[in-house]
Amino acid sequence: MSLAQSGRKLGVAVVGLGGAVATTAVAGIEVIRRGANRLDGLPLADVSVPGLVDYRDMVFGGWDLDGSDLASAASNHRVLNDSQLGETSDALSAIRPWPAIGSGEFCRGVTGANKFEAPGHRAAVEAIASDLRRFRKTSGADGIVMINLASTERTPGDDEALNSLDAFERALDRDDPSIGPAMLYAYAAIESGVPYGNFTPSLAADAPALKEFAKARNVPVAGKDGKTGQTMMKTVLAPALRSRALHVDGWFSTNILGNRDGEALRDKDSLASKLDTKGKVLDSILGYHVEDHLVDIRYYRPRGDDKEAWDNIDISGFLGHKMQIKVNFLCKDSVLAAPLALEIARVLDLAQQRGDGGVQEQLSLFFKAPMVGNGHDPEHAFHAQERMLMDWLGAPQ
Amino acid sequence: MSLAQSGRKLGVAVVGLGGAVATTAVAGIEVIRRGANRLDGLPLADVSVPGLVDYRDMVFGGWDLDGSDLASAASNHRVLNDSQLGETSDALSAIRPWPAIGSGEFCRGVTGANKFEAPGHRAAVEAIASDLRRFRKTSGADGIVMINLASTERTPGDDEALNSLDAFERALDRDDPSIGPAMLYAYAAIESGVPYGNFTPSLAADAPALKEFAKARNVPVAGKDGKTGQTMMKTVLAPALRSRALHVDGWFSTNILGNRDGEALRDKDSLASKLDTKGKVLDSILGYHVEDHLVDIRYYRPRGDDKEAWDNIDISGFLGHKMQIKVNFLCKDSVLAAPLALEIARVLDLAQQRGDGGVQEQLSLFFKAPMVGNGHDPEHAFHAQERMLMDWLGAPQ
Amino acid sequence: MSLAQSGRKLGVAVVGLGGAVATTAVAGIEVIRRGANRLDGLPLADVSVPGLVDYRDMVFGGWDLDGSDLASAASNHRVLNDSQLGETSDALSAIRPWPAIGSGEFCRGVTGANKFEAPGHRAAVEAIASDLRRFRKTSGADGIVMINLASTERTPGDDEALNSLDAFERALDRDDPSIGPAMLYAYAAIESGVPYGNFTPSLAADAPALKEFAKARNVPVAGKDGKTGQTMMKTVLAPALRSRALHVDGWFSTNILGNRDGEALRDKDSLASKLDTKGKVLDSILGYHVEDHLVDIRYYRPRGDDKEAWDNIDISGFLGHKMQIKVNFLCKDSVLAAPLALEIARVLDLAQQRGDGGVQEQLSLFFKAPMVGNGHDPEHAFHAQERMLMDWLGAPQ
Amino acid sequence: MSLAQSGRKLGVAVVGLGGAVATTAVAGIEVIRRGANRLDGLPLADVSVPGLVDYRDMVFGGWDLDGSDLASAASNHRVLNDSQLGETSDALSAIRPWPAIGSGEFCRGVTGANKFEAPGHRAAVEAIASDLRRFRKTSGADGIVMINLASTERTPGDDEALNSLDAFERALDRDDPSIGPAMLYAYAAIESGVPYGNFTPSLAADAPALKEFAKARNVPVAGKDGKTGQTMMKTVLAPALRSRALHVDGWFSTNILGNRDGEALRDKDSLASKLDTKGKVLDSILGYHVEDHLVDIRYYRPRGDDKEAWDNIDISGFLGHKMQIKVNFLCKDSVLAAPLALEIARVLDLAQQRGDGGVQEQLSLFFKAPMVGNGHDPEHAFHAQERMLMDWLGAPQ
Repeated sequence: MSLAQSGRKLGVAVVGLGGAVATTAVAGIEVIRRGANRLDGLPLADVSVPGLVDYRDMVFGGWDLDGSDLASAASNHRVLNDSQLGETSDALSAIRPWPAIGSGEFCRGVTGANKFEAPGHRAAVEAIASDLRRFRKTSGADGIVMINLASTERTPGDDEALNSLDAFERALDRDDPSIGPAMLYAYAAIESGVPYGNFTPSLAADAPALKEFAKARNVPVAGKDGKTGQTMMKTVLAPALRSRALHVDGWFSTNILGNRDGEALRDKDSLASKLDTKGKVLDSILGYHVEDHLVDIRYYRPRGDDKEAWDNIDISGFLGHKMQIKVNFLCKDSVLAAPLALEIARVLDLAQQRGDGGVQEQLSLFFKAPMVGNGHDPEHAFHAQERMLMDWLGAPQ
Repeated sequence: MSLAQSGRKLGVAVVGLGGAVATTAVAGIEVIRRGANRLDGLPLADVSVPGLVDYRDMVFGGWDLDGSDLASAASNHRVLNDSQLGETSDALSAIRPWPAIGSGEFCRGVTGANKFEAPGHRAAVEAIASDLRRFRKTSGADGIVMINLASTERTPGDDEALNSLDAFERALDRDDPSIGPAMLYAYAAIESGVPYGNFTPSLAADAPALKEFAKARNVPVAGKDGKTGQTMMKTVLAPALRSRALHVDGWFSTNILGNRDGEALRDKDSLASKLDTKGKVLDSILGYHVEDHLVDIRYYRPRGDDKEAWDNIDISGFLGHKMQIKVNFLCKDSVLAAPLALEIARVLDLAQQRGDGGVQEQLSLFFKAPMVGNGHDPEHAFHAQERMLMDWLGAPQ
Repeated sequence: MSLAQSGRKLGVAVVGLGGAVATTAVAGIEVIRRGANRLDGLPLADVSVPGLVDYRDMVFGGWDLDGSDLASAASNHRVLNDSQLGETSDALSAIRPWPAIGSGEFCRGVTGANKFEAPGHRAAVEAIASDLRRFRKTSGADGIVMINLASTERTPGDDEALNSLDAFERALDRDDPSIGPAMLYAYAAIESGVPYGNFTPSLAADAPALKEFAKARNVPVAGKDGKTGQTMMKTVLAPALRSRALHVDGWFSTNILGNRDGEALRDKDSLASKLDTKGKVLDSILGYHVEDHLVDIRYYRPRGDDKEAWDNIDISGFLGHKMQIKVNFLCKDSVLAAPLALEIARVLDLAQQRGDGGVQEQLSLFFKAPMVGNGHDPEHAFHAQERMLMDWLGAPQ
Repeated sequence: MSLAQSGRKLGVAVVGLGGAVATTAVAGIEVIRRGANRLDGLPLADVSVPGLVDYRDMVFGGWDLDGSDLASAASNHRVLNDSQLGETSDALSAIRPWPAIGSGEFCRGVTGANKFEAPGHRAAVEAIASDLRRFRKTSGADGIVMINLASTERTPGDDEALNSLDAFERALDRDDPSIGPAMLYAYAAIESGVPYGNFTPSLAADAPALKEFAKARNVPVAGKDGKTGQTMMKTVLAPALRSRALHVDGWFSTNILGNRDGEALRDKDSLASKLDTKGKVLDSILGYHVEDHLVDIRYYRPRGDDKEAWDNIDISGFLGHKMQIKVNFLCKDSVLAAPLALEIARVLDLAQQRGDGGVQEQLSLFFKAPMVGNGHDPEHAFHAQERMLMDWLGAPQ
């Protein structure tokens, strides 16, 4: 275990602060602060780079439609065990989410009372920006980043309004319904000079208008859709199959999960949004189209916050002989996701210190649908993504 | 599909020519020569590097204790389907293994009548060298390489005789029983200036004496133990687990297989030799010792030449929460192995053309227990091995 | 192996004669007739009961929208291996399906040119009956049974016309579109005094009107939806879980299959019809409702006629502790189904000899949705079904 | 939930009271006594038969080499969750095992200080009998039964001394080393008129001498080797495969477990004793010998008290076509075992009330190697065993 010693304090403003991933992240930092001697799950725990903030120096605030304090939220999510709930109870109960900009339109499965009813888009953006200013002041942090950990929103129709910054600004003015909450948060972050990371599949900083905005303001942005379980495995296995010239005849992936995230995916539009980012990965790595690539996600309550993936891969080898690989991953969604969200926050903060604005491609390692600069193709192969990140960090591999 | 067009002809002298891997390799080249338009399973099929011999320009000879012609041997192994057996029947029936130097001492499960009873070690070496000379002449090949595809031999006691070339030479003179057949073949190859690749777990060119010999004569050697199914997957998955800081609490690997190779492993000493190369891989990749790393191999006849691996991996993630990954690989041993053996032969030949003698570390990608130069540590991570090979080849990645 | 020696000849008229199940059944009987010494897969091969026809004395005819001869159909389905195709080629090429009453309305995925365009329902029934008369005469069979092995039809709306024989007769007169092809075949069979078995999920003899008809005419009928892979396993495992008082918290079943049957299920209505019979089984066996019982079926071409099921079962044991069972069944659909279809034919014929008309509940063992007499509840537990059949047969268990 | 209301109190004297199964059973009864409203895992919870003791009226005593109180033992085994440990802590800490007759000779993996060093076999028997008398008196129970839940002992050599009661008595007199602790406990129980159930694979009441003794004294005895995870599944699946005439070509079973029981099995002789009872089941059910039936058990610490089984079953169906079934059972050993041990105790007590002495075959349902009367063959098929038990109980099925 190596903990960086930068002395720098980082404030993380989380969209969806009461969710399972966020409460796990906040509790985890608290456990580390109290002296945990294992840093499992944190990919950059062993990386020592100047400016990378120490885990113990991260503080949290953020928005949620559910206004319960984080101790009570964490207890509901059943990710932490009893001893961890107990140990972090004081710290977590002191944090209560700010009223959120929600939208039944964009995210059907989730509702809540802790809502800020803005009279329009511009007012919503101003409210978010004001929250950020207050958080920076009260937290005493040296830097602030925003991370989106909210539930998946539906994909908006392919709208003109999102294709350029000018069009987007006009759309904001007229409260255009094609601009969803995730985009309002991203816009407010960029406008406030706050680095923005999108861990959800929702369209946000990857809209052309917002990529343009981030570049113009030189604010680091990254996304999207955290790469945790099945897709992570896919991006680990597929490059090896390609390397061995084992042709993928078909890949059937099914998922069962039972948490709030799964419930949101019962809405067809949100599900489509999720499946879309899952589907493109394979062909990109293999270099050819796999017609029989199927991905199912099913809401299955007995799994709770655990998540289970079953993959069947059909391959052809030498002389056309057929083989099969089956992978059954019994994982815990929030346990895999929370540390990645923390690392994204730390790297975004480092990018800002380095004056490195716009899309942070080196964070591809943590995303299912990596945002890239204009004209670039996303890299999906796990080990190649890792190399990109390590090169950027300047860390020895 | 890209086939190199070097015009160079390569003769491959195979130890264990009648085995399932060898007959599959020979038949495969024949199918390609007859115009197959898919090169699945051949990792370097898309690599175009000057000097790398065209698959269609490979010819085969070799030794086996079973003197049956290759058509009849291939038919017994049941790897090829009926149509492939038919198509290659003429070509394979024309190849009949040369009498082999076998040893009941070193490889208990396998016997046969096609045996050369040498009066001693030196005579055995001379017989092998003479076979190589004859093969070079009759095949009209521009280059010759030797590949060991025979059954696993038992590991010799840690013998003084193997630790230096001088001691080895003296041991040859006195017919020391610590020198097994695989070492005699390797010695003969090196002495004849023929590059040598060891696809088996048997101790051969990796004995210090023979590494020294290969270096002195500037003959390329590589090994050992072809990395096909379960261990390949292990070296693909483990680096990703490390990268995600997911701690491996235990890894249980079991294998069922029903071919001649499996039968040989019923002998405890041969099995130990196999397990040994399988065991070291994991700790090396992870950087810590996994005490609960268990590997079982069981002879199970219904599987035939197919091979099935079931792996259970226990991991700890963020805050110590436990997860499990299970991988079930229904593979075909010879189908995975044969193309690797072919690539090893091609790369060894290229190394000799380049004047690159001694241990060829860049071939690590194809081995469970990669041979390395003195003072080097073997690289086990799949993607890092791939990069080594691509860098050496000078091929774009 | 025991083959009954009744001397009786049985003609089996198959709806969907060119399909994978039917051609496998016909070829299988031919292989047995030619002296095969293994009767694997035939559940009643060891049962010796007077009147049960010898497998070798079964002959086949039937309808199919595809008019190809059975040798060519079997070759397309890729169920039989090359040697079996060769051995049965002469016998199968001599059988060519009769023109079928098809309906794009009821079974969308399947079309074909070998169609009888009846001017109306009554004409269709008469055509089928005429085919049966001709088959009885030309085959020289002592008994005739009809088995439906066609693709799944959509479930008709809950129609008045199907609820009583009188209403059905009137609906036939006015060519009511709620009467689908499967019902026309079943009606024609019963009217002709020919026992009828429905191996598909389509609504046929289980419509109240047709059950009434079968009872009135004392014609044996049975159905429906052959119990082959996943559901068979479900009805084997669930009773044991109940017996051990292991509470089923959830059961997730997914299937991948790539044959014509799978393609038909891409139509949503046909799929719904299939899922419906799959869903009811579990609650009936357990005695309580499992809300998280999910069943997916996906068309996945690499599987071909093979079919793969993956089940995850979540159970609670003593003191509420959770456990999981996962079952992965790599099966061959037609290989499992064909022998069951043959046994159903034999038992229906025996029932007719015994004067046992109406619903044959003792055949429940072979069906996902067993037809039962009015007022009865279907038995789904595998072992209880087996006992019913053995008791009826009078065979020692 | 139905709880019998007999008013009868049953004392259960457990050999191995501090083990995971025993402490789980004792804690479970305490939880039920405190009003639990779910009786999951208890197979006879819904059976209402006069004389069958109410779970809440069971009290416990017994022997263990480890003298820790049961609260502390249960806490070490990590089977119960924190809330269950808390709830039962008072009751369990009041129970402390009596000094046990242990033998390093017979059970190598397990040692402990809470030992009664008897000067010889007769003294040991007398000490056990005296414990039973004291337990009967202090517990105020209406009936007493003894259940062996200790670790597996090695199988004794096939000794003359065990073949008749006379020989056994003489062997007791001379402290013959072929008589192990399990037999001493069984002898003492029978001599004391206390019904005896053997949940372990150790040789005890199934020695011919002790079966003779139990019959002579008309004391109910049952065993052996509780049927919990993999073997239970085997006896559920195999009868169905037989019923479908699916020929079993091979069955590979592997187990990983990490509790004290697993550690004991690291001793080769104890393991052999366990494997032996596992192996015979399959052939008996199928009616033919499966040569490729392999069973592995491996001690794997990450599994803790959980136990995981992976089975691969190779089957041949119609026309010899091959299929595979794979079953992965993630179970909890003690959670499955404890309720079975409780039911065995209740049924043994009922048998004694009914005057039904000697071997209780109707308890076969709960054992891997069911004890049967002389001349009988054991029934292994799960559903047939269930029927036997229900018939004996007189309960409606």
